[in-house]
Amino acid sequence: MSNRRLLKKCQIRNQLIRECMAECLGVYILILFGCGSVAQVTTTQDKKGQYLSINLGFALGVTFGVFVSRGVSGAHLNPAVSLSLCVLGRHPWLKLPFYVFFQVLGAFLAAATVGLQYYDAIHAYSGGELTVSGPTATAGIFSTYPADYLSVWGGVVDQVIGTAALLLCVLALGDQRNSFLPDGLQPVLVGAVVLVIGISMGSNSGYALNPARDFGPRLFTYIAGWGADVFKAGGGWWWVPIVAPCVGALLGTLIYELMIEVHHPPTPSELQTAQAAALFLSQDQHSYSITSGMTLDSSL
Amino acid sequence: MSNRRLLKKCQIRNQLIRECMAECLGVYILILFGCGSVAQVTTTQDKKGQYLSINLGFALGVTFGVFVSRGVSGAHLNPAVSLSLCVLGRHPWLKLPFYVFFQVLGAFLAAATVGLQYYDAIHAYSGGELTVSGPTATAGIFSTYPADYLSVWGGVVDQVIGTAALLLCVLALGDQRNSFLPDGLQPVLVGAVVLVIGISMGSNSGYALNPARDFGPRLFTYIAGWGADVFKAGGGWWWVPIVAPCVGALLGTLIYELMIEVHHPPTPSELQTAQAAALFLSQDQHSYSITSGMTLDSSL
Amino acid sequence: MSNRRLLKKCQIRNQLIRECMAECLGVYILILFGCGSVAQVTTTQDKKGQYLSINLGFALGVTFGVFVSRGVSGAHLNPAVSLSLCVLGRHPWLKLPFYVFFQVLGAFLAAATVGLQYYDAIHAYSGGELTVSGPTATAGIFSTYPADYLSVWGGVVDQVIGTAALLLCVLALGDQRNSFLPDGLQPVLVGAVVLVIGISMGSNSGYALNPARDFGPRLFTYIAGWGADVFKAGGGWWWVPIVAPCVGALLGTLIYELMIEVHHPPTPSELQTAQAAALFLSQDQHSYSITSGMTLDSSL
Amino acid sequence: MSNRRLLKKCQIRNQLIRECMAECLGVYILILFGCGSVAQVTTTQDKKGQYLSINLGFALGVTFGVFVSRGVSGAHLNPAVSLSLCVLGRHPWLKLPFYVFFQVLGAFLAAATVGLQYYDAIHAYSGGELTVSGPTATAGIFSTYPADYLSVWGGVVDQVIGTAALLLCVLALGDQRNSFLPDGLQPVLVGAVVLVIGISMGSNSGYALNPARDFGPRLFTYIAGWGADVFKAGGGWWWVPIVAPCVGALLGTLIYELMIEVHHPPTPSELQTAQAAALFLSQDQHSYSITSGMTLDSSL
Repeated sequence: MSNRRLLKKCQIRNQLIRECMAECLGVYILILFGCGSVAQVTTTQDKKGQYLSINLGFALGVTFGVFVSRGVSGAHLNPAVSLSLCVLGRHPWLKLPFYVFFQVLGAFLAAATVGLQYYDAIHAYSGGELTVSGPTATAGIFSTYPADYLSVWGGVVDQVIGTAALLLCVLALGDQRNSFLPDGLQPVLVGAVVLVIGISMGSNSGYALNPARDFGPRLFTYIAGWGADVFKAGGGWWWVPIVAPCVGALLGTLIYELMIEVHHPPTPSELQTAQAAALFLSQDQHSYSITSGMTLDSSL
Repeated sequence: MSNRRLLKKCQIRNQLIRECMAECLGVYILILFGCGSVAQVTTTQDKKGQYLSINLGFALGVTFGVFVSRGVSGAHLNPAVSLSLCVLGRHPWLKLPFYVFFQVLGAFLAAATVGLQYYDAIHAYSGGELTVSGPTATAGIFSTYPADYLSVWGGVVDQVIGTAALLLCVLALGDQRNSFLPDGLQPVLVGAVVLVIGISMGSNSGYALNPARDFGPRLFTYIAGWGADVFKAGGGWWWVPIVAPCVGALLGTLIYELMIEVHHPPTPSELQTAQAAALFLSQDQHSYSITSGMTLDSSL
Repeated sequence: MSNRRLLKKCQIRNQLIRECMAECLGVYILILFGCGSVAQVTTTQDKKGQYLSINLGFALGVTFGVFVSRGVSGAHLNPAVSLSLCVLGRHPWLKLPFYVFFQVLGAFLAAATVGLQYYDAIHAYSGGELTVSGPTATAGIFSTYPADYLSVWGGVVDQVIGTAALLLCVLALGDQRNSFLPDGLQPVLVGAVVLVIGISMGSNSGYALNPARDFGPRLFTYIAGWGADVFKAGGGWWWVPIVAPCVGALLGTLIYELMIEVHHPPTPSELQTAQAAALFLSQDQHSYSITSGMTLDSSL
Repeated sequence: MSNRRLLKKCQIRNQLIRECMAECLGVYILILFGCGSVAQVTTTQDKKGQYLSINLGFALGVTFGVFVSRGVSGAHLNPAVSLSLCVLGRHPWLKLPFYVFFQVLGAFLAAATVGLQYYDAIHAYSGGELTVSGPTATAGIFSTYPADYLSVWGGVVDQVIGTAALLLCVLALGDQRNSFLPDGLQPVLVGAVVLVIGISMGSNSGYALNPARDFGPRLFTYIAGWGADVFKAGGGWWWVPIVAPCVGALLGTLIYELMIEVHHPPTPSELQTAQAAALFLSQDQHSYSITSGMTLDSSL
């Protein structure tokens, strides 16, 4: 009881700080499970996991990252998603740099945690040499590198299509005039989108789809001993999973809007959006999720 | 905000056009994830995926294809399903050719997208030669071909049984007097039906179960460089996944109707169907899904 | 419309016949997907599936078997479950032989369908010789056989423990005073029970857990060409998956009752059970499932 | 009917005894499925299962362990969880030793059951010699042992991080002001947390995360023929999965509280907590789960 009161003393009321902490912790969870699963598969040489378990690791990482943060920040967990929402006028531009910084920070800290947890395993597997390429390379545990055959242009196309598919599905899940989802199923289905993208678009370049997911851990490897190779490898690949997902996210948003959402007939309730929204918010404060956030002002 | 208003200018109010776009986008998602997963398994030679990941790719492809389109078109996503609904009087015959055309178009465009995304990978795997059979054949990424041992008659039986099982389960999921499903769970369970069919009936001829899923991508391979072999292979196999699923869909519908649905006792609410249906529609416009669409007028 | 009216003419109002058809179709679906997945793994020699896909095949087979029949018969799908319910006074003894017969019939017909669908595949794999043991044995596609190391007594223990675990979990899922489940999730979770039993108790003797699941298909193999060996193999194994599951089902029921259900404090609503049950039935006719059926009269 | 009345005579009204039986049965189910899946993979040498099936075995074991016990005891199933709740003032310290004892007892009995069910299989696989290390070691079926490369300090870090991640996610699932979950989905998602931890943090030392899960079965192996080696192996590893999970559970709780839960703005309903809680309890007696238990008094 007294422990509880002690905790209460730490309460922060500033909404932006709360949102930044939630985004940070959400991405932390996502990368902790995601990169952890790559570490397990890599260091055990597929004996305790395989490509499918990496797909599951990132999928469930997203699911629980969303659960951890959706009630506070809306669970963007991805600078490309935050950017799309800003462009559509659904998220204030002013918050964008803060969100992005804390998303990258969460990914960096999670990569450091995975590095700590798998310290002995990475040492044993790599013989103590931290390399970016070669038979015992371990940099791929943390960030993505393209397949040998992939051209830079092919990589850009890959990341644009992947992120467009991600946004297309996530927007459909959040479009309550298309399909109503019970609260609590959304994070699971957003994870399932990431699973199916990993299964169907993962082999070219590791489906980063998310600048923070790739850049935060890459920064960690740069500092922690893998060195400048992490930026040079794959013909200077590092900028692709930062730029292309932003383009893809906007493309996916545009396709869904133009093919489905824009054409929904106005509902009676839409005529009273302001009141309805107010009511909705007061009743279900917790349900302000990535997707409901996207649809709340879809009639504006 | 102004972006949003710009989008609103593109609104189309014609219901048939909206439905066609939804069917097109729904099948697009289905094939993008489905054929994408085959491409990943094929071009990495089972290193980044296996048969189970193909099963998951098509299953989740169906799930998100349904999520994308159910609120607008009812998510048929399959000419055989549209046909069955027409035969049962649950869908207007006039719309059938439009639905079928846009389903095939969606599948064609998705195959083209997979071809683009895996351009480098297919080139590297096949050495630049696009073949339908042989050790580095890649036509199987896009459409189905029968196993060597399968006779044409065996293939027809395989596709009839598979599609009958599909319809049987989908009709049970939508039969609200048999089992009530929370909205939002239906697309997931329709995906699970496709998963289990892939697991238990996939090895003979790749469980097309859907004329659009097979013919659209086959057309793409015909145009994109695989040539006339895509129609000649398997003893002229191409017509089986078009005709047999239609027969199977009707058979499955008949079995479920005759063994279960027809015998439900009339419920009190059934006596007031008209009002109830009207009420239901005004309250839950979004829930007009493949299955609820099937049951709405089940008392006629 | 007229097709629909034609179908309506076939309506049967006899409740027992309807229940028998539902049980038959439910077990048919279960075995069609279950044995189908074994056929796929066996005839492709693990290339298009593996042990896990068999586990998934039976799990999802149960799930959709339950969806197909729960609203009509309560989805027993297993003579051992029907027996337990009779012993507990929750199902009339008079119906037991009918249920059991149609459960076995459904399994038999499904095995025949699998035999038809995999006719070419089985022929190609076995070289046309239908054997019960040896390198190209195919009888195991249809019914269970014990591992070489297993003693008969060990097999009995294995089946008793497995079926007890099944009933224990299924009863917990249906005990609404322990945990309330949204309608529609129960069939999925009953499938998950079968999945985890297959994963953790499948290697000794193939987790039949169900006399109908094993005997129906065994009868099919006996008739269809595998001959009397299907009864002789494994030291006359065939009776174990018939008798032991019945013992196990009763044991699991007893454990759950004595450790959990019997001790629930009487709820206020329990004092008015009769009215409540009547109300419940009139509102949710569809929810009379295997598990809710078990709890409806738990206060008697 | 009379059977039912016979059972009713065994009713126990003492709340603590009921809770202890529920914890015992819940952990029993968890270990029965969890260790059973390891036994299957080990004794079939990966032919009927693989590392992923072990992950699924423990995940679904947790899910059904929670379903079996949540309505009675709140489904702690883990001494480290019980301890955290006591520290936070959400569970009476007096009950702690009882909970822990029955959790360990359930794990011990389940290990004995697995030993019985796999008696023939273990005998055949190990040639009758029960060893803790070496090519046919079987002690790992029951409790965890560290990988060769792992230092004791690395093992402690591994278990602390793993259990912290577990609590972080479980607390988020139960924090209704962050995300509201439909009753019935919680046990499934708690199982999914265990799945993803097994996939991403399982290779170092087998993700015990739970003193009872590890110590109960270890005791069984000590008694049943594996001898004192079970305590000596891994440099006296046995205490790590007892102590480290307790530290990790507290750490995870602290992180979630300080980054998310403590900062939730007070809701209107919070001002009337007492009444609300009373109402909540009387309406949904069954929903007193591990997680709702954690949040009920979060405003104290």
